[in-house]
Amino acid sequence: MSSAAIGVDVGGTFTKIAAVDRSGKIRLQQSLPSQVAAGPAAFVDRVCGVVEAWMEREKLKILGVGLGLAGDVDSAKGELRFTPNLRGWGGFPFKRALERRLSAKVVVDNDANAAIWGGYCGELRRKPSDVVGVTLGTGVGGGIVVGGKLLRGATGSAGEVGHLKVMPDGEACHCGGKGCLEAYAGSYGILKTARRLIARHPRRARRLLEIAGSAETLEPKHLTQAADAGDPVAQEVWLTTGQMLGVGLEDLVLVMNPDVILILGGVSRAGRWLLDPIEAHLATSPFRTPFSKVRVKMADNPNAGCVGAALLALEP
Amino acid sequence: MSSAAIGVDVGGTFTKIAAVDRSGKIRLQQSLPSQVAAGPAAFVDRVCGVVEAWMEREKLKILGVGLGLAGDVDSAKGELRFTPNLRGWGGFPFKRALERRLSAKVVVDNDANAAIWGGYCGELRRKPSDVVGVTLGTGVGGGIVVGGKLLRGATGSAGEVGHLKVMPDGEACHCGGKGCLEAYAGSYGILKTARRLIARHPRRARRLLEIAGSAETLEPKHLTQAADAGDPVAQEVWLTTGQMLGVGLEDLVLVMNPDVILILGGVSRAGRWLLDPIEAHLATSPFRTPFSKVRVKMADNPNAGCVGAALLALEP
Repeated sequence: MSSAAIGVDVGGTFTKIAAVDRSGKIRLQQSLPSQVAAGPAAFVDRVCGVVEAWMEREKLKILGVGLGLAGDVDSAKGELRFTPNLRGWGGFPFKRALERRLSAKVVVDNDANAAIWGGYCGELRRKPSDVVGVTLGTGVGGGIVVGGKLLRGATGSAGEVGHLKVMPDGEACHCGGKGCLEAYAGSYGILKTARRLIARHPRRARRLLEIAGSAETLEPKHLTQAADAGDPVAQEVWLTTGQMLGVGLEDLVLVMNPDVILILGGVSRAGRWLLDPIEAHLATSPFRTPFSKVRVKMADNPNAGCVGAALLALEP
Repeated sequence: MSSAAIGVDVGGTFTKIAAVDRSGKIRLQQSLPSQVAAGPAAFVDRVCGVVEAWMEREKLKILGVGLGLAGDVDSAKGELRFTPNLRGWGGFPFKRALERRLSAKVVVDNDANAAIWGGYCGELRRKPSDVVGVTLGTGVGGGIVVGGKLLRGATGSAGEVGHLKVMPDGEACHCGGKGCLEAYAGSYGILKTARRLIARHPRRARRLLEIAGSAETLEPKHLTQAADAGDPVAQEVWLTTGQMLGVGLEDLVLVMNPDVILILGGVSRAGRWLLDPIEAHLATSPFRTPFSKVRVKMADNPNAGCVGAALLALEP
C-alpha cells in the first residue's frame, strides 16, 4: 500500500470511508454507523480512528481527505449551513477538525456533488465537458459539471436539481416546498404514487403486492421486479416517475445544454423502465440541437459518493 | 479614431451595427433594415459596406467582428442551424463570409448571449463570477455566465431560459411547445394575459384602455404607464407576469446558484412592477442560502446586443 486519498460519504444512517488511488480505484473500505445523535465531534473522532489505523497497519500515506455531507455545505469554511438529515451538525468546523487531526488537505462538499464527481470520473471515460448529474435516492440530489469542473455557484449551492418545480402546487416535498421533482422521483414520492395506484386498482396490482408483501412494505426494488414480471401498476408507476423526470431534465437541457445526463443512485436500478419515458419525453422538445446531442446514462455505483469525495480532494 | 471591435445585432426587422472600444464604449453606430427576404449574402454585403466606410472615412482599425443572430447558432461553424425569425438564413456561412471580406476575427453567437454579455460587461462593474441573464422582448432569451465566461454548452445552445416550463400544458409558445416562460413573459404572452383581463373586466381597465387606445393597439409600455397611473388591471398583468418569471427564475437559482440575475430588454422598463413580484416569489423558497445571496438587477440598455457582440469578438 502506498498513497491514496480518503473519501468519506456521510448518510443519515451509514457512513462509508474509502482509501482511493489517483485512478479512482478503492484500495481500502469500511462502513460505520453515522450515529448522528452522538454529534459531529464524536463522528470525526471515529472516522479518524479508521484512517489512522489504515495509516499504521497498511503504511498508508494520505494525499487528502474529501467529505461529502447531505445538506447545504459551505465549502470555503468546510461546514454545514443547513441539513434536514444530519441534525445538530450545522456549524461544526469539519474541515478544520479533520485537517488538524490528519495533517492533510481537506475538502468538504455536498454529498450529491461528491457522488456526481465520482460518477463523472468513473463512468464517463471520455470526460465530456458538460454534464448534468442527478442522484435518485430517498431524495433527489444533483451536481453539474461545466468545462470538466464541478459547478459550485455563488454560495456552493449549485445543482439542487431535486427541487426544480415540475408541477405548480403539486405534491409536498421534504424541503417544505410543493411540486418539486424530488416529491415525484425521490423514493418517497415514487412510493406515494405507487400506493395511490394500488389503492385505486388493488386487483391490477396483484403481482406487485405478492412481490412486496403489502403496500406498507413496498420498496422501489419491488416495483422494478413487478414491472419486469408484467405488473401493469408497477409499470405505470415507472412511466409516471420517468415522465416527471423528463419534465425536470428537459429544463436542465435547455439551460445547460449538457453532453451527458448522468443518473446515479439506487432508484436508477429501474433501468429501462425509467429511461424509456425520460427519453420519450426529451424527444418531444421542439429544440432539436441540444436534445439530439444529449445522452442519458444510468449508472448505479453505490461507491460513487466516497470515490468522488476522495477525488475532489485530489483536484488542484 | 483608432481601433475598435464591430458588433452587429441582427433583429427580425432592424440591425444595429456599432464600433465599440475595449472598454465597451460605442464610438460609431448605425442601424439598417435587416431585409431578411433579400437573403443573407445581401445582408452581409450591406453590413460590410457600412464597416468599410468607417474604415476609410474614420481611419478605423478593426480588432474583430461579433455577430449576434436570433436562433440556434453553431458558433464553431459560424452559422445558423435553426431560426424562426430569420427565415432562409439557416446554413449560410456568416463567419467565413465576414472573415474573407473584412480580414478580421469573426465570432457568431446567439443574440441573447451577445446581449447578456454586453449587459454583464456594461452593467455589472464588479464582474461577479456567476450570472443568469434573461432578455425580455417579443420572446424571452437567456445567457449564462459561469466563472466570468459565457456558457456555451455541448452545442452552443445553453441558456434557453425562455423555454423553461412554468406551467404543464400551459399557454402555447412560439417555439411550438406549451407552458414555456416565454408564453407568459414574452411581450406576446403579456399582451395575451392583458387582453384576457380587459375582456373580463372592461370597466376596471378603463384607464389602461384610455392610455392604449384599445385592446388591439395595446403595448407593454402602456401597461407600465397605466400601472403607474393606478390602473388595477395593468397592475394585475405585471403581478401575474412577475410571478411567472419568479417561477422560472427560482429553478435557475436552484440549478446555477448565481450571484446576480440580470434582466434586460424593453419589457424590463416595467421596473418595480415586475421586480417586486419576482423578489416576493424568490423569497418563498425554503432554500435560504442561494436565494438570500442572489441579486436581481433590471437594466434596459438597448445597445447591449451590439456592444456584447463586439466584446465577444475581443475575448481570447
